[in-house]
Amino acid sequence: MIIVLKPKASDKDIKAISDKIRKFGMAPHVSKGEQRTIIGAVGDERLFNQDQVLAMPCVEKVLPILKPYKLVSREFKKEDTIVNVRGVKIGGNKLVVMAGPCSVESKQQLLIAAKAVKAAGATILRGGAFKPRTSPYAFQGLEEEGLKLLAEAREETGLPIVTEVMSSVDVGLIGKYTDIFQIGARNMQNFKLLKMVGRTKTPVLLKRGLSATLMELLMSAEYIMSEGNHNVILCERGIRTFCDHTRNTLDLNIVPVLKKLTHLPVIVDPSHGTGKADLVNPMARAGIACGSDGLMIEVHPNPVEAVSDGDQSLTPKDFAQLMKDLKPFAKAAGRTL
Amino acid sequence: MIIVLKPKASDKDIKAISDKIRKFGMAPHVSKGEQRTIIGAVGDERLFNQDQVLAMPCVEKVLPILKPYKLVSREFKKEDTIVNVRGVKIGGNKLVVMAGPCSVESKQQLLIAAKAVKAAGATILRGGAFKPRTSPYAFQGLEEEGLKLLAEAREETGLPIVTEVMSSVDVGLIGKYTDIFQIGARNMQNFKLLKMVGRTKTPVLLKRGLSATLMELLMSAEYIMSEGNHNVILCERGIRTFCDHTRNTLDLNIVPVLKKLTHLPVIVDPSHGTGKADLVNPMARAGIACGSDGLMIEVHPNPVEAVSDGDQSLTPKDFAQLMKDLKPFAKAAGRTL
Amino acid sequence: MIIVLKPKASDKDIKAISDKIRKFGMAPHVSKGEQRTIIGAVGDERLFNQDQVLAMPCVEKVLPILKPYKLVSREFKKEDTIVNVRGVKIGGNKLVVMAGPCSVESKQQLLIAAKAVKAAGATILRGGAFKPRTSPYAFQGLEEEGLKLLAEAREETGLPIVTEVMSSVDVGLIGKYTDIFQIGARNMQNFKLLKMVGRTKTPVLLKRGLSATLMELLMSAEYIMSEGNHNVILCERGIRTFCDHTRNTLDLNIVPVLKKLTHLPVIVDPSHGTGKADLVNPMARAGIACGSDGLMIEVHPNPVEAVSDGDQSLTPKDFAQLMKDLKPFAKAAGRTL
Amino acid sequence: MIIVLKPKASDKDIKAISDKIRKFGMAPHVSKGEQRTIIGAVGDERLFNQDQVLAMPCVEKVLPILKPYKLVSREFKKEDTIVNVRGVKIGGNKLVVMAGPCSVESKQQLLIAAKAVKAAGATILRGGAFKPRTSPYAFQGLEEEGLKLLAEAREETGLPIVTEVMSSVDVGLIGKYTDIFQIGARNMQNFKLLKMVGRTKTPVLLKRGLSATLMELLMSAEYIMSEGNHNVILCERGIRTFCDHTRNTLDLNIVPVLKKLTHLPVIVDPSHGTGKADLVNPMARAGIACGSDGLMIEVHPNPVEAVSDGDQSLTPKDFAQLMKDLKPFAKAAGRTL
Repeated sequence: MIIVLKPKASDKDIKAISDKIRKFGMAPHVSKGEQRTIIGAVGDERLFNQDQVLAMPCVEKVLPILKPYKLVSREFKKEDTIVNVRGVKIGGNKLVVMAGPCSVESKQQLLIAAKAVKAAGATILRGGAFKPRTSPYAFQGLEEEGLKLLAEAREETGLPIVTEVMSSVDVGLIGKYTDIFQIGARNMQNFKLLKMVGRTKTPVLLKRGLSATLMELLMSAEYIMSEGNHNVILCERGIRTFCDHTRNTLDLNIVPVLKKLTHLPVIVDPSHGTGKADLVNPMARAGIACGSDGLMIEVHPNPVEAVSDGDQSLTPKDFAQLMKDLKPFAKAAGRTL
Repeated sequence: MIIVLKPKASDKDIKAISDKIRKFGMAPHVSKGEQRTIIGAVGDERLFNQDQVLAMPCVEKVLPILKPYKLVSREFKKEDTIVNVRGVKIGGNKLVVMAGPCSVESKQQLLIAAKAVKAAGATILRGGAFKPRTSPYAFQGLEEEGLKLLAEAREETGLPIVTEVMSSVDVGLIGKYTDIFQIGARNMQNFKLLKMVGRTKTPVLLKRGLSATLMELLMSAEYIMSEGNHNVILCERGIRTFCDHTRNTLDLNIVPVLKKLTHLPVIVDPSHGTGKADLVNPMARAGIACGSDGLMIEVHPNPVEAVSDGDQSLTPKDFAQLMKDLKPFAKAAGRTL
Repeated sequence: MIIVLKPKASDKDIKAISDKIRKFGMAPHVSKGEQRTIIGAVGDERLFNQDQVLAMPCVEKVLPILKPYKLVSREFKKEDTIVNVRGVKIGGNKLVVMAGPCSVESKQQLLIAAKAVKAAGATILRGGAFKPRTSPYAFQGLEEEGLKLLAEAREETGLPIVTEVMSSVDVGLIGKYTDIFQIGARNMQNFKLLKMVGRTKTPVLLKRGLSATLMELLMSAEYIMSEGNHNVILCERGIRTFCDHTRNTLDLNIVPVLKKLTHLPVIVDPSHGTGKADLVNPMARAGIACGSDGLMIEVHPNPVEAVSDGDQSLTPKDFAQLMKDLKPFAKAAGRTL
Repeated sequence: MIIVLKPKASDKDIKAISDKIRKFGMAPHVSKGEQRTIIGAVGDERLFNQDQVLAMPCVEKVLPILKPYKLVSREFKKEDTIVNVRGVKIGGNKLVVMAGPCSVESKQQLLIAAKAVKAAGATILRGGAFKPRTSPYAFQGLEEEGLKLLAEAREETGLPIVTEVMSSVDVGLIGKYTDIFQIGARNMQNFKLLKMVGRTKTPVLLKRGLSATLMELLMSAEYIMSEGNHNVILCERGIRTFCDHTRNTLDLNIVPVLKKLTHLPVIVDPSHGTGKADLVNPMARAGIACGSDGLMIEVHPNPVEAVSDGDQSLTPKDFAQLMKDLKPFAKAAGRTL
């Protein structure tokens, strides 16, 4: 941690800061320059309370040197984490494709979707039973009934399932059915929920929040890992910007940055990331090209009848075409699909 | 709802859309223009599934005409809602000031703060017992012990209290102590939590999410009200933008817009909104000037020892000065303080 | 400047950086920590080429300590700059209000507006003769004819005028007529234009760009001042964010920050800042409350006939009411209007 | 254009709007609904002054139906525009790669870079002679001397050149040397400049502004085309968002949207788009994967000595590797490189 003092800072100020640094269990290193005095605080930066130091009137700014996360970092673990979900490996050479409907609506709808995505090459089935909806008047999901249908679809197709958990009270119930907990963008900083899934052994798919920085995403993964569950998969699904040509702005730039900083697998969701079915194909290609470990894609047997996200869902036919189109890009990236 | 078709749309397309509109319980009105056919869907727009229609290949765009919320709207209730908290009225002519420390740290810290803010004219005491922290390694709050201290401080000073609830599982416990539930920015779309506090009779302070639109904020208030609890107070506390001269960008523009669209009280939090103690005073003045019904301000007996948010907390002395400075602005706005 | 090295940096790396720092005419100070080596570069930071250092593989980050601007800063000049425009003082105790139509459309339109704003208390007349329009098919301004009408209106009312200059080639022509050059948001980083107006003696009103940081705004003012023209007025007029409840997001937070960092006057434009006539009044009040030195307001005799910005223009009657409403807020802020 | 009236709108209001629509040369179509009256305005929407109608107190909102641009649109011209620059075709099956240093610094630097990028397969040479710099104290470019060096490098290598024009006064001078005018992000809405290059026959590379919407980008291209120059190439180079893991946020999503809406070629600049040399390779791959017609890449013989943008410049060796890595992605996209 580096503390830059204001030009007028006195020796008394310098002593006060040095004392505080020592109180945090760190060592102060003072360098007096011509224009500014700078104090380095050496030690475990996570012990340092930045806000307290910024509250001192003589302090101009505080600049962190080290990273505030540990377990998620490449320094902590060099080799890529591979999450194993009933035999499907996420984070390895083979790209993972999670596909299925936004909401589970009925047995028939789910089974048609599940079989179609399996036939086309998807290896994990997605489907929402508990749905976060902006409006209280919109369909809120089939809840446990939906979980049962997902389990049936898994039985039928052999595909492991991923489904969203929106509240810490539902972790137990959903955990009985699902193979992967999905934490949605709106809950990326629902810390109680992060802790609860962190206490299970079930892999967690953590979606980036709409306005989450890279650091906040990694810190949320750290929450889960610090409770003991190291099977975390990160997912970029679009951020909120001024742009109006897509529903969200899929920020693919974060993929290679994450791959450098963390050992966790990173996947891309171009369905939510763009909000438009006809952009899913090009952005899925781009996601693979920039180094992601897989994709999450919404597929509905009949998008014009979907209770949610019809406009961003692919038909089974379009999805089959997508999987075909992705093959040469996977190969170009040195991966298999 | 207005549906704009693509230039190539056929009569068959028009019929398909008209049928769908009727299925939603609405009536279709078709106008064929030279360049585009436009279909109006008349009826209750909340029944209309926009995504399904957007999924139809012949549809170019869908334009909502009516508002998706009801209970929060000025159309539903013309006169301002006044929330009564143990005799303190929020939303009336007298401005409300909620003040106190970010985190409850100790009995002594809280009591000093509580007495100081009361003496300066605050009418509600704020303090966090359950704390949402970006890092799992940071102080997470005193939890129930903190709630007890808040209740003691209320006893001692007579000030009603407001404290954050972060999870639906804590609604019962926190409800036993608090006079107002605070829903933090990160939980603005934690729908389970919104429903749970909506089922109580305790007033709710709903903070705008970091990237929440006006509509999303109002829909989250609608979630609470649709469960029966109409005592909702809205709070602007800064949004996330590209700006780096403040921690967040306090969006005061939303205040007069909200006052026009909804009957609910609107307050402003310049402490979180700017993240810098020296900006609290000017932005608090501006908040009152543009029509807010009150303020939420962080005050700590000794900011350089605060466990959280030291850099944005006022000292009791600064807070007393602020209250004095605000008086003429309250008067200019035709309000009392 | 502080350079943080990567953990693996060698002594050879440290030497290479130290040599580079010396080449910039600065002195290197090396501190080897347990986890990181940090090098301070002491001297004139404006000589330091940050990108070159970041290009070195051993460098993790570069943290500037000093500010990159000089002439605009409070350190360079402590007391407030007061820009004198034909006797109207901008930046002093009396608030300045610049008002008038978006575009100059006709002699009659301009004179009605000019007389009305003068009668209500405005002290400077605004009006566009050269208009930046998103569409090439929209009205582009009356150009020199408009400048002549502005000069006539000045003659008639005694109000000094401010009008936009969009291109360096027009500086000579417009300079013959105007009392203040306005640099619009889209041209805040049109460096040639900044230099050209910097070589005149005419005051310059510099509007913040839609996505300009505080630093970029100050550096653009520095461009003008570094050419010799120290009569610069800064103007906040809204930034681009995800918000859709206003056309732009008026960022009032920048006002008190600018007042602290620079001696230049700062005004607020709530007409462009919000894009909606009914938000001009509350946001103008807020602009004064947070410390701005004045306002810029669009007024049109008949907004429903305005060739541009009709939806954000006040009628003369609304403007008169605004000036009346602002009085107590000016007084509360310790200013006169 | 669709005009939605407020619930209280009277017959007189409806008549006033209908009259105004007719005045714009369009025809009004009134539909009275139960809750709202809606008026369609049929005809050339570019004649319609939206702001005037929004200024009418009875109007709630105005919804455009048609697009405000014409010459840039796929409706105007179905087949892809191929811009021919001294035999190099931009927009056809073969991807174009424009590469070279940020700034032209010296004959030697430029020639080394030019030969290196040609050897690796680039077909156009980039290099800045007039440089837009945030600081007035930074290197501003070699100006005409730089143009001469670019012409020499073209002579030597046969590569056509692209260089930035920052001001309308320089169009003549730069036009004597360059093969493509580059309009930088900061000047995307410098309308005078757009008109001036639009009056030449030299192809124009138009970079998207930092906060430009899709529509604004297309309207700026329309400015150039409406003056007669139809050789416009669009370039995505990163937008400004809250993200801090990249200098800008490269918005690849706009590429497939542009390819659908316009016939103009679209290229991607991952050097400015990310601001970090190690992200250029993955984001260049992604740019090709999502359908761009080419790339613009910064290459410097020795980035640690570059006068500008050293941290985002590739070495010749890295650039050669990039070109090799891109080959299979180009093939996967059905293109050649």
